[in-house]
Amino acid sequence: MKKNLTIQDIAEAAGVAKSTVSRYLNNGAVKESTKKRIKEIIEEVNYEPNAFARLKAKKSNIIGVVAPCLDSTVTSMVLMSLDETLKKAGYTSLILNTNHDIEEELKDIERLGNMNVDGIIVNATKICNRHFEIANQLDIPVVFLAQHFENQISIINEDYLAGYKAGEVAGNLNNKDVLCVSVDPDDVAIGVERLNGILAGCKDFGVDHVEVVRSDFGNIKSYRVIDEVLSKKKPDLILCSTTRQLLAAYKCIRDHGYKIPDDISVIAFGGYDVVDLLEPLPTTIQFNPKELGQVAATTILDVIDDKEVVQLQCIPFVFLEGASVKRRES
Amino acid sequence: MKKNLTIQDIAEAAGVAKSTVSRYLNNGAVKESTKKRIKEIIEEVNYEPNAFARLKAKKSNIIGVVAPCLDSTVTSMVLMSLDETLKKAGYTSLILNTNHDIEEELKDIERLGNMNVDGIIVNATKICNRHFEIANQLDIPVVFLAQHFENQISIINEDYLAGYKAGEVAGNLNNKDVLCVSVDPDDVAIGVERLNGILAGCKDFGVDHVEVVRSDFGNIKSYRVIDEVLSKKKPDLILCSTTRQLLAAYKCIRDHGYKIPDDISVIAFGGYDVVDLLEPLPTTIQFNPKELGQVAATTILDVIDDKEVVQLQCIPFVFLEGASVKRRES
Repeated sequence: MKKNLTIQDIAEAAGVAKSTVSRYLNNGAVKESTKKRIKEIIEEVNYEPNAFARLKAKKSNIIGVVAPCLDSTVTSMVLMSLDETLKKAGYTSLILNTNHDIEEELKDIERLGNMNVDGIIVNATKICNRHFEIANQLDIPVVFLAQHFENQISIINEDYLAGYKAGEVAGNLNNKDVLCVSVDPDDVAIGVERLNGILAGCKDFGVDHVEVVRSDFGNIKSYRVIDEVLSKKKPDLILCSTTRQLLAAYKCIRDHGYKIPDDISVIAFGGYDVVDLLEPLPTTIQFNPKELGQVAATTILDVIDDKEVVQLQCIPFVFLEGASVKRRES
Repeated sequence: MKKNLTIQDIAEAAGVAKSTVSRYLNNGAVKESTKKRIKEIIEEVNYEPNAFARLKAKKSNIIGVVAPCLDSTVTSMVLMSLDETLKKAGYTSLILNTNHDIEEELKDIERLGNMNVDGIIVNATKICNRHFEIANQLDIPVVFLAQHFENQISIINEDYLAGYKAGEVAGNLNNKDVLCVSVDPDDVAIGVERLNGILAGCKDFGVDHVEVVRSDFGNIKSYRVIDEVLSKKKPDLILCSTTRQLLAAYKCIRDHGYKIPDDISVIAFGGYDVVDLLEPLPTTIQFNPKELGQVAATTILDVIDDKEVVQLQCIPFVFLEGASVKRRES
């Protein structure tokens, strides 16, 4: 006997919810005893799930999100706002952490591609050709965050302009000897774009000397690289590319017995939820991680809904004057 | 014609990778043109994927993780260490954020149950019967973190004992008028267990008066509730249940013109990555979020591997003396 049995019929016969039968058919987790019951009913009527019917793209209302880490303030803010925006639209985000590992990042995009998600948002660590290859193999939209991927939908911060502004402020206040703490140049947004903006701004506004040191996103290495420089000399100003570098700079300047801003000025990118806690209030350049998350979420939903989207969107920065920068006499 | 075609055969005929065919068969994301090609080949030979073969539980090496938020220091540390431990064992974690919403938490467990994950770790916000019902419907292991679920595998912090220690320190140093900032009692671990420990410790060590105010996990509300109390009176000691409450207390005490610890002592649970930044160094009681994450990961892997696991594991606390508590004269 072979008949057209619906999932509803099976559910009723087995005395379980339709969702349980569906889970069973889709290889989801079902209790062993329930599984056995459903299997018996299916075998009894020789039910053959129509493979193609099942294979037909079904909206899952799930968006995969590839994140570089889960323990940075900025990433956390982006993820929370992204998730909130998706939830409001009836979607759920499924988050994978790459821990800044590019191989993991590529694998995670593939993993999500295997998972029947409706789209993927990649908060990218670096730019690499394999991103495109993988993204192009998928039939679901992929939106890139924080790094500019040519010919792909990208949402980025205005890193160059923000960097330029920092250089302008340093030069205008006559802080002529600048220590710039950057990150690895593999991170094009922060380690290249932001840095290039800083160097151009410093040059255009008369900063004599910029020493660039590379750190990472953690407190510990940042403290070490700043400490190495302060052990040799006292710059006019330290320019920090991230919030943790700011924290490390404040601590290291204090540990060397210097005062902010009397001895050393500080300008930092970021700050967000910690600026309030620091004395003196740091002068910061901030993007809007909440907006970045929101724009990412609405963009991928627009692509899914076949609406037109702009290929490159930029989140503007704001300059927030604190009390950590002092004008130097010439 | 009907023949036993393998996925390998289809892949070769379509000129694509086996993984692409597998993705196609499992309703994953495949480019439209590739999809068409595979479909034609399958139809040509009338290939019928054996539903039961495909339904057979196949290890995905993916662990679902339900998190209460992504922007708390503790949760971030737990998630990062959990993810790291799983990655070392060849697993990936798939993270869902509930934003402290119990309905989302329950839905997320179900969602993960539908996704062919090998197990689920729930960093639970609250305890509720429906957790068991849902967990018991699944045939994959579920491990609960941070809240004690009876008859389920749970890993918790020693909240009562840690609370008791705080009360002991307050009483021993003669801080007799204590303001305790707690959280909602729905959060049994912090809002009930930890608080009960505090109250018992205070009572046993001679603290005369404990005023309990309820806040949440954010800076803003915590500042407001502390501000309300400080506008009326000056307690000897403020006891904060979370890191953000600690930050709010430091700021609020300063804003009211009081000195720590001369005017008001502070003891806090947490602190972790911010204690170094605060002046004076706060006296804290810390658990070990890294260990919590590690234990959660190894526990679920042990259950998956049919190894014996203890049903309730407790992560001990440490008391870290800072400079934020002062002995009061009687």
